[in-house]
Order: sequence, then C-alpha cells, then structure tokens
Amino acid sequence: MSKTTQDHLPQVLSVSDLPTSEAKWVALKKVEFIDQKGTPRTWEIAVRKTTSKSGVDAVSMGNIFVHPTKPPATLLVIQYRPPVGKYTVEWPAGLIDGDETPEEAAIREMKEETGYEGRLLSSSPAVAADPGLTNATLKLVMMEVKLSGAEADEIMPDQKLDDGELIERVMVPLSELYQRLMGWAARDDFMIAGKLFYFAAGVHFAKTSGYI
Amino acid sequence: MSKTTQDHLPQVLSVSDLPTSEAKWVALKKVEFIDQKGTPRTWEIAVRKTTSKSGVDAVSMGNIFVHPTKPPATLLVIQYRPPVGKYTVEWPAGLIDGDETPEEAAIREMKEETGYEGRLLSSSPAVAADPGLTNATLKLVMMEVKLSGAEADEIMPDQKLDDGELIERVMVPLSELYQRLMGWAARDDFMIAGKLFYFAAGVHFAKTSGYI
Repeated sequence: MSKTTQDHLPQVLSVSDLPTSEAKWVALKKVEFIDQKGTPRTWEIAVRKTTSKSGVDAVSMGNIFVHPTKPPATLLVIQYRPPVGKYTVEWPAGLIDGDETPEEAAIREMKEETGYEGRLLSSSPAVAADPGLTNATLKLVMMEVKLSGAEADEIMPDQKLDDGELIERVMVPLSELYQRLMGWAARDDFMIAGKLFYFAAGVHFAKTSGYI
Repeated sequence: MSKTTQDHLPQVLSVSDLPTSEAKWVALKKVEFIDQKGTPRTWEIAVRKTTSKSGVDAVSMGNIFVHPTKPPATLLVIQYRPPVGKYTVEWPAGLIDGDETPEEAAIREMKEETGYEGRLLSSSPAVAADPGLTNATLKLVMMEVKLSGAEADEIMPDQKLDDGELIERVMVPLSELYQRLMGWAARDDFMIAGKLFYFAAGVHFAKTSGYI
C-alpha cells in the first residue's frame, strides 16, 4: 500500500445518535402506503438530501484501462469509509451535482478521483442502491481509458481531490479482479464495496462456473 | 405478470420526516473520527437497528436452478419496495436473525421467499451495501436447486411469507438474465436492485466485451 493507507490508521472517536433535524446529508422518512391487497402499511427509509435534478443520486465508473502491451486492467480506489469503519475497495464513484447528467458526472468524477480522462462505453439504467433501506439510486457507467506515453509507463496523473478526500488508486488486471478482491476481503481493516464485488463475482461465475 | 403485480398498484399516501427517536428499524448516527492526516472530521450515516450477532446484516441468494432438460436458470423475486416506490427485481434476500449464521439465514430465507430448498455452493465475504451512506453489510450466498418431479414440470412450491410480504417469483434462463433485467428497467413502475444488476453486468461483460 502507498502512503494514504500508511500515514495513520483513521480513528473513530465517537458514534452518537443524530436527530433528523440536525442532519445535513441524510434524513429518515416514514412512508405510509397502501399495499397490493389494500392494507395500509408503513416503512422507514433513509434518504440522501442531495439527489440531483436528473433523479439519480450517484454514478460508479466501471473502467477498463487498455495498455499498449499489457492485458486490460481496471483502476480501483481505496479510501477510509467512516460508515463501515474500514478501508473500502470500490470503483471510482460520486454523487451527481445539481445540473449534471449522470454521464457528465461520471467523466468529471473519474477525472477528479483518478486523474484519467475516460471515454464513455455505456450507461446503465438507474438501479436501486439498497431498496429495503433507502431510495438512493445509481448508474453503472462503463468507461475506457487508452494509455499511452507517460501514463503507459505507469506514471499516474494527478488527482483533483476535494478537501478531506484521501483516495488511493490501484490498477488490477481484469483477469485477476476477483482473486484480488478476495485477498483484500480477508484483511480485518478492509471491506469490498458490494456492487463492485457482485460485478466481479458475475465475471468469475461466467468464466468458471460451467453453468453459462 | 401474475396476480401479485396485478391486484392493485400500491399507493404511497404520505412521506414524512421521521425523528430518530421514533424510528424502530433505522437510525441516523454521527461519526466523529480522525482521518489519515490527523484532521478531525464527521460523517453522517444511516444504520439498521437489526444487525445480527454474526456481524452481518443480510444475505442475498444468487441461485442456480438445474432442470433435467432445460438450460440453467435463476429465480428472481419481484416485490413492491416503498423506499423506491416501485416494484424491484432482486435475488431472494433477507435479514439475518439474531442467532443465525449467514448461511443458515440463506437457506431459511430461500425456502420462505421461494419455497425451494437450496444447496449451498459458496458464501462470499461480508461486503458493504452502500459504504458512503450506511454501515449495512451483506453476503452473497450462491445456491443450487436441482429440479425433479412436479417442480421440473414448473409447479412452484408454496412460499412461507410473513404477514404483509407479497413476493412474485420469475424464473429466468441464466443466458437471458441481462437482457431480461434491461427489459424490466425500461418500465416506469420497475427498478432493478443494484447488486443483482452488477452481477448480471459482470456476466454480460465477461461474455461479450472482448476484454476478458
């Protein structure tokens, strides 16, 4: 690991109840609804206060790096995530700003978090981040980065991180993605982000299960 | 669609602010922490109040149905999800009860939601459901169901649903999974659960991208 994960292990000082009225980024809501059978019911949900005008909260960038001589790879980001109290391994991702399209946000966030200019390959429908708990939605935007010159010599370009963002980048050959994730997952101080894991599990399944 | 999604379209009556002190299932917390650079910071998170003793909140069952004469398929569940206000398409999933292991919960929930007895193939590490927002974690448990007799004649066994659960089952050939999800995603009243979508996207990527 490079300096980011070596500096200091972040340290949680306290976890306290947060009244909804004091929260800036998230809120709790109660939904009252009539189900299919005509029965009135309620559901408690967590919402982001930051949903963009596009109606989608976030994008994650499934990226493929094409190198002139090496096998195709993907760039993962590792950062300390206070909600889980560990370093997470994820694809680059970010919230969509007010007036952006999800695809504009994907190109901007890819550049900010990784330093690389990505080319859009495809953009998924909006999918539900965790539909039993939250209304949060995201799109999986697939991007390609063709490496040449200094970048192909493994000199990574500068990131443009927000104040407080400390994001480490790790390039992983696509053919090793699942095994590398399993290696990180075995560490007490790391956790894999679910959606990246499921994508990698799908690739692994297609390649090895014999079912498909 | 069968009767579940035809009875009535569920109707949201109201969405109101929910004080943390009145919530039974979810809560907001404020985490105060010191980051890698030694700077004190805070983060707002949503937590479930139901985390099991195993330390993992939930399981989702990536299932493969093996039929004597037909190609392998997977059973998806469709249910109205108040947090997103739509029908979601997901793999069977559920919260882990207090004393259960994740794998016990997977077998129990598979039986309750689908009526089928699954055989455990593999169980993933705990992964983060949405690590920018919540501490919720889950495991992807892969299961196989071998069909024979009446089940192979497409007579589905009875579900054992909780009061208020209305869950429709749809069998989809594995080779058609991605395209079927894209079809549902095009409907205004449906949304695909992110983790299932990412798995299907991984399979699709492995089969069609030419990168791997």
